[in-house]
Amino acid sequence: MFKFCKTQLWECSRTLSDVAMGRKPAETVIRNARLVNVCTHEILDNIDVAISCGRIALVGDAAHCIGESTKVIDAEGQLIAPGFLDGHIHIESSMMTPIEYAKAVIPHGTVGIYYDPHEVCNVLGLKGVDLMAEEAEKTPLKAMLTTPSCVPAVPGFEDSGAEITAADIASEMKHDYTVGLGEMMNFPGITASAEPTHNITGETLKAGKIITGHYSIPETGCGLNAYIASGVRCCHESTRAEDALAKMRLGMYAMLREGSAWHDLQEVSKAITEHKVDSRFATMISDDTHPHTLVANGHLDHIVRRAVSFGIDFVTAIQMVTLNCAQCFQMDHELGSITPGKCADIVFIDNEKDIRVTRVLIDGDVVAENGKLTIDLPKSELPAWALDTMHVGETITPETFKVHTDKVGTATVRAIEIIPVHVGDYERHVELKVENGELKSDVEQDVLKTFVFERHNKTGKHGVGFVKGFHVKCGAMASTVAHDAHNLLVVGTNDEDMALAANTLIQCGGGECIVQNGKVLGCVPLPFAGLMNTKSAEEMDELVENLGKAWETIGCDIQSPFMTMALIPLACLPELRLTDRGLVDCTTFSFADLEVE
Amino acid sequence: MFKFCKTQLWECSRTLSDVAMGRKPAETVIRNARLVNVCTHEILDNIDVAISCGRIALVGDAAHCIGESTKVIDAEGQLIAPGFLDGHIHIESSMMTPIEYAKAVIPHGTVGIYYDPHEVCNVLGLKGVDLMAEEAEKTPLKAMLTTPSCVPAVPGFEDSGAEITAADIASEMKHDYTVGLGEMMNFPGITASAEPTHNITGETLKAGKIITGHYSIPETGCGLNAYIASGVRCCHESTRAEDALAKMRLGMYAMLREGSAWHDLQEVSKAITEHKVDSRFATMISDDTHPHTLVANGHLDHIVRRAVSFGIDFVTAIQMVTLNCAQCFQMDHELGSITPGKCADIVFIDNEKDIRVTRVLIDGDVVAENGKLTIDLPKSELPAWALDTMHVGETITPETFKVHTDKVGTATVRAIEIIPVHVGDYERHVELKVENGELKSDVEQDVLKTFVFERHNKTGKHGVGFVKGFHVKCGAMASTVAHDAHNLLVVGTNDEDMALAANTLIQCGGGECIVQNGKVLGCVPLPFAGLMNTKSAEEMDELVENLGKAWETIGCDIQSPFMTMALIPLACLPELRLTDRGLVDCTTFSFADLEVE
Repeated sequence: MFKFCKTQLWECSRTLSDVAMGRKPAETVIRNARLVNVCTHEILDNIDVAISCGRIALVGDAAHCIGESTKVIDAEGQLIAPGFLDGHIHIESSMMTPIEYAKAVIPHGTVGIYYDPHEVCNVLGLKGVDLMAEEAEKTPLKAMLTTPSCVPAVPGFEDSGAEITAADIASEMKHDYTVGLGEMMNFPGITASAEPTHNITGETLKAGKIITGHYSIPETGCGLNAYIASGVRCCHESTRAEDALAKMRLGMYAMLREGSAWHDLQEVSKAITEHKVDSRFATMISDDTHPHTLVANGHLDHIVRRAVSFGIDFVTAIQMVTLNCAQCFQMDHELGSITPGKCADIVFIDNEKDIRVTRVLIDGDVVAENGKLTIDLPKSELPAWALDTMHVGETITPETFKVHTDKVGTATVRAIEIIPVHVGDYERHVELKVENGELKSDVEQDVLKTFVFERHNKTGKHGVGFVKGFHVKCGAMASTVAHDAHNLLVVGTNDEDMALAANTLIQCGGGECIVQNGKVLGCVPLPFAGLMNTKSAEEMDELVENLGKAWETIGCDIQSPFMTMALIPLACLPELRLTDRGLVDCTTFSFADLEVE
Repeated sequence: MFKFCKTQLWECSRTLSDVAMGRKPAETVIRNARLVNVCTHEILDNIDVAISCGRIALVGDAAHCIGESTKVIDAEGQLIAPGFLDGHIHIESSMMTPIEYAKAVIPHGTVGIYYDPHEVCNVLGLKGVDLMAEEAEKTPLKAMLTTPSCVPAVPGFEDSGAEITAADIASEMKHDYTVGLGEMMNFPGITASAEPTHNITGETLKAGKIITGHYSIPETGCGLNAYIASGVRCCHESTRAEDALAKMRLGMYAMLREGSAWHDLQEVSKAITEHKVDSRFATMISDDTHPHTLVANGHLDHIVRRAVSFGIDFVTAIQMVTLNCAQCFQMDHELGSITPGKCADIVFIDNEKDIRVTRVLIDGDVVAENGKLTIDLPKSELPAWALDTMHVGETITPETFKVHTDKVGTATVRAIEIIPVHVGDYERHVELKVENGELKSDVEQDVLKTFVFERHNKTGKHGVGFVKGFHVKCGAMASTVAHDAHNLLVVGTNDEDMALAANTLIQCGGGECIVQNGKVLGCVPLPFAGLMNTKSAEEMDELVENLGKAWETIGCDIQSPFMTMALIPLACLPELRLTDRGLVDCTTFSFADLEVE
């Protein structure tokens, strides 16, 4: 059964025949459109579409399908394309609930998402995953769940709020809203033939569902082969064109990423524009999108515009967010093209140059026009347990942040150097002055003290490191959006501000805040799992924008600094990361000492 | 579960990782090949493939996968392509059993077939279908069953040996060897929203399996839309390029046909060569192949050569018999590309000009080299019930063939005019002389008496008509290969020879024969359901060739006359057909009188 439709095809196939043949009026007919035919890679003029039961009954001339009761939409020569599908996203990155996320993306043409609620799962476990799915069901957005596969992300290197086993996966695959496995970040486990990891992918294969991937190293030889051979069907982690091309050549769907904080598309799109290969194994996805990007730029419509600006043919770009994605998930019999029998998920686009979405239909209903939702959706209602997730096991004071050293004069430390708008980072060795047996933040060198506090089970653990690259001159920042365990992350120039930032978030149930000289300059409360808020995209954008100003006040000039900061603990990506257990060398998967001997 | 592999992926993914990473030796490594990459539409040089557990572990440089136990195959710069898949075939058309069919096609690069045992089902019912599946399981050929959907083909217009209901379909879909529904020939039932027909397609959809199609009229408007809207995923019946193109545009896989007796490819390939569309929705299939074609020309290798000769790019042609077909059946995670994790079904090809298959691997094992099978397969063993199917309910004598008329002088009759090497026919009105109140064959006008005798349940029914176009001058011919009910079909110039031809087949358990002046000139016994013989392709070719000489002796000069003759009763194709119940006007689906008033 395909859960994400108004009517199962076998329940309405006779009605669709009646409508196509003109024996029954269609519920809706779109007239006079220019069809983006993703099946044949053409734009066809003067096309009508007849719709009934949420599905497409006819594409062509639908004059005979119009009755008195039929709603007729004159496309006036605008383009129509299949509704856009995002093959890999984390709703949590928007800091919004599924309902508010749906409200934000639908007007941009998004009709379906393959989402991996990996973040909420790290905090709340499968109970949180199911809560996301139940929320999403209240919207027309086809929210297709891929169950988080790697919780904790890097077992043994961090403490998360939950642990997912192969037995959990087997059980979750039985849900009708579950269509696959979330990004298998533990590629070292796969390539090392680790039994628990292969059991997780194996349970997905046994259920006949799709394994989504995450192969984040620039390697295209034996490791990538081993990874794909295990049944992983797609990967959104390519940052070089040659990696995306290698994946496509090996039959893996290359999901070209254009998120808010990492812009891989310009580079990886060269796999298509320069190599002129068959692009059916390429899709475009957002992975992580900030509220501001959604409000200011859009979602997949924005990514299509970017793709075209990088030289990808318009129709090819549309294929990459429709048919190709549906084929990746083997759902092309339900989704991804404007052809008979499919869900009537249709996007109107003004023209192939501006690529503005002017109207969106989902399951045959108009749900958005001119960038505005035209239907009412409820507000999110969350249970108390989902709002109570700040369980730090120690009292945090300025004293907590002292970093002792035995060295005298100077000490060389391993610092995490961030790379703005990219997910990777570098390990840098930095010489710091020792003052009274302490290592402090060094604003001159742009090197800041960084702490990660376990916040799920009051273990009292915390990890200590240094980060480079934020250009911050004063104050401190804290966040409970801290991939992937989402512990409490604090970075700062001085201990007092760091303590205030940490305690501010503990009090408000999680979120992000900036502190300077004992004052909270900006705060985005994220009480739902410490990750999300029930506010709208516009409200969140405003909150985040204010926070952005606070970032600027303390000297930071990089783009989307909180998204970049949130990756500091992401121990599945190279090179050096900090978790609540300490510094992790992510190229060898071993703990690293803070000081270089 | 994917029945058609040596090892389920979840059972061997750790081993594949071990092999790809070089921790365990591969079972087989192919070295130094030119890879036809169907994913990216490229030919890549210097490619190795490492294989274990019947699956591909690595594609690229496999030097590190070779151990002492590894079988190394040096491709010596030859091309390797995924094993060929035929998306729609009837094994029965080869007149061979599944085992002998497999022996014949594997050396030509065929590794998988989606077969519709529609003919045997018409004679023996689902018991016969299951017998075919059990036979096929004894071979390495991936024989993927699509359950016959239309038995009888045109209910109410013919008598077959069985009747298939929606309940039967629901039950058959539970078999692991069943991957979909056989060609839904009853497109009038679909477009008329007939409940029994939609119940049959509906049960297939509910089972999550593929509905294969048959839309044989040159109509691309409301009827085709209604048909596709009901979930029919592919169709092999296009005879015009515009029909194939319309199907692809509507998201239906256009299966371009090149059978022994109908050569649609030259025309329909223009959908791709002239319109330059994305060809992912195009495949090539054989539908019906005679033993001679298999022996003299080959199977899908022959069709690829034809495609290239018609201007289809070589790699595109290979995609059409590999990846595109696998995507049609949503099995591309198992089949259709040489990429990690897939079944190691690999075809070696000498070069892109000659396109000769030199070696075939199925599930990692070499099964054929230089056109010869390299493995032993058993002989077919059939139960007695499958060999006892000639149950004609009347004693046939020359008297049986008298056709009475009330007309005096002349009478105008509806004659079926055959079109050699095409499946369609025409209704022609022919004036015949009346002699002693009888209508006789008129060799001058090339118009012959034609009878169809019910042979399944001794009903004693027979239908009477005339056929035009065989150029036969004397004698008679009979066949129990007579689509789709496979009753006993007799055509002839005189009643004595017609009776002898009919009785010859009754005695030998069915088959095809030619009679002249009271002598049997040639006979191909087909004792298995009156459709097949356990002999090899070469033996069958010889028998059929002798029969061909007999055809020539009686004056026939058309190509594959028995295949064309066998379509005389095929009441699902236009325009006029003859069944055991009488003449059928297949444009209106009504019985027609023999005489035109």
